[in-house]
Amino acid sequence: MDDRVREHAETLVDWSARVESGDDVVVSVAEGAHELGVAVAAALGERDANLLATYGSDELNRAYLRAGDDEFESPDHELALYEAADVLLRLGGGRNTAEHADVPGDRKGAYDRARQEVREARMDTRWVSTQHPTRALAQQAGMSHAGYREFVYDAVLRDWEALAEEMGRLKDLLDGGSEVRLVTDDTDLTVRVDGRTAVNSAASVAYDSHNLPSGEVFTAPHATEGTVTFDVPMTVRGRRLQDVRLTFEDGAVVDYAAAQGEDVVGEVLDTDDGAERLGELGVGMNRGIDRVTDNILFDEKMGGTVHLALGRAYDACLPDGEAGNDSAVHVDLITDLRDGGRLEVDGETVQQDGVFRWEDGFEG
Amino acid sequence: MDDRVREHAETLVDWSARVESGDDVVVSVAEGAHELGVAVAAALGERDANLLATYGSDELNRAYLRAGDDEFESPDHELALYEAADVLLRLGGGRNTAEHADVPGDRKGAYDRARQEVREARMDTRWVSTQHPTRALAQQAGMSHAGYREFVYDAVLRDWEALAEEMGRLKDLLDGGSEVRLVTDDTDLTVRVDGRTAVNSAASVAYDSHNLPSGEVFTAPHATEGTVTFDVPMTVRGRRLQDVRLTFEDGAVVDYAAAQGEDVVGEVLDTDDGAERLGELGVGMNRGIDRVTDNILFDEKMGGTVHLALGRAYDACLPDGEAGNDSAVHVDLITDLRDGGRLEVDGETVQQDGVFRWEDGFEG
Repeated sequence: MDDRVREHAETLVDWSARVESGDDVVVSVAEGAHELGVAVAAALGERDANLLATYGSDELNRAYLRAGDDEFESPDHELALYEAADVLLRLGGGRNTAEHADVPGDRKGAYDRARQEVREARMDTRWVSTQHPTRALAQQAGMSHAGYREFVYDAVLRDWEALAEEMGRLKDLLDGGSEVRLVTDDTDLTVRVDGRTAVNSAASVAYDSHNLPSGEVFTAPHATEGTVTFDVPMTVRGRRLQDVRLTFEDGAVVDYAAAQGEDVVGEVLDTDDGAERLGELGVGMNRGIDRVTDNILFDEKMGGTVHLALGRAYDACLPDGEAGNDSAVHVDLITDLRDGGRLEVDGETVQQDGVFRWEDGFEG
Repeated sequence: MDDRVREHAETLVDWSARVESGDDVVVSVAEGAHELGVAVAAALGERDANLLATYGSDELNRAYLRAGDDEFESPDHELALYEAADVLLRLGGGRNTAEHADVPGDRKGAYDRARQEVREARMDTRWVSTQHPTRALAQQAGMSHAGYREFVYDAVLRDWEALAEEMGRLKDLLDGGSEVRLVTDDTDLTVRVDGRTAVNSAASVAYDSHNLPSGEVFTAPHATEGTVTFDVPMTVRGRRLQDVRLTFEDGAVVDYAAAQGEDVVGEVLDTDDGAERLGELGVGMNRGIDRVTDNILFDEKMGGTVHLALGRAYDACLPDGEAGNDSAVHVDLITDLRDGGRLEVDGETVQQDGVFRWEDGFEG
């Protein structure tokens, strides 16, 4: 086994999920993630944790969904499993990213709605999602398998403690600030962040962070004004988005356009009132991620980018008891600041051309 | 997908496990059983049952066991899952039947002991074990993959209702009889079956039968006297057994020998007092199984054979409240009656040369 697979497993178990002796751990293994599953099983055995492996197979799930109707029940046995579990490790990495292409969207929606309680029980565990570098994900990224593996391990095998410390600087700036401004050639957007708390998403449940890799600082903005262009291409709902442009007034979208996928943007905005407002402002700080791979888990953490999400805000960013922007959707869109972009907090430049002011080469 | 995979799944779900709408079903998918898993998922979707797939991976299990020590806990989350489940479908079929060869036996034993409660919860579901015809199982059988698939589907896709009816005849004879005698060139063994109830094992939970394929009638014998030679070769504890010969007096083994694997027989007999006595007399009646494949799920059901198990008896064969032979082991051994063998109940020949008296060609 590639040593990096073992290191990936150990990072996931120790740094990310903080697994301890006696923990009841569910490991969900995607079709292509077997090798990582074996490494995670060994790490759990060494730490005297209890392992139950589930099979996160896109093909089984597709067959099940297509064979049924639109009526689903909440599964008691799955709920009981997650209510009794301490940790959930989701090892993504399928064999075909388009496997659900012929599952009707309504049916998927009905299935997800029926499983709301299960989802909440999963979120109450120390859950972490990661991905094994499969050929399907390499293909999605337009990369060779070998090249993609390098990319994934560069992103995952970071010095997370050092990165958490660096991200702490930005968190302090955002927590102390009132207004954030984004500027590029075709963007000038202002959001308010006063009264909100930024999350230092350092790929560990100890930091309220549930993705490996992570490496972003995010908060829940409000009172958005101005125009933003998202120049990083993405796939949303199986369709391609390019150069999405949104204009906000009084916090809500008043105009939108896109070079590609404009209809998808319209669909998202039509979901509900909350879908027209931002739920997240995130700043990518993972320098191991240096290219777009059409995979949101990686793209949104890319160092030198900023992402904004239409829809639901995360509770962790809000004062206790206060509800943030609510919506059935949370759709991230990304803009690259590395070529002429600027990030300001309360009028002061924090990042210029993708370089933070505490980094070498900063020219603010 | 091969239509037979779909038929296998439907037989498992409908005939064997009697799955109904709303059932909470756990499907354990072995590494090589993905294709059958997809077919089972579709069958469950059609029947509006709830699906949770677990990953029955020998490689994950081996890695977990080898990495740990000999201390294991009962896993609460897995117990909660099975306590809430209605049905467990175990889809066997690994990629290497020797995958556990380097797991210390003591550790496996400690793991199994810690999971006693989980095992009981699993047995309280409508559980059924089956196997997908993988290359590893074909290799174990000494067969081509294509040839092995034919073999497996011949065994699994029977007219189970007709077979259940035929097996009912033998069950009636055993339930009404007192003494069973087995005779071959080198066997003359008598067991008592009075006060015991035979199980018509027709591959369905409706018949107290939990294997697909099945096709045997079995009971819990006592007062064994005489000598039996098991001429069907087997693998027990990873070692080969050939022509095991046991002599019984007053129900217990007083002498043993084997052309190969005599030490394994000795180990089994030394386990405890119950290991020296028979826990099962089973009569194979599945005519779809016409050859030995070194796989107990199939071998013991072969039409024209009889198997006897050293060790634990099944409660279903015993009067309510009466404990049968108890032991930590249950080791099946098989003898072929097709060439000169005879099965008698109370002195009357029921089967001669592997042919039952109600079949064409019977010459009793």
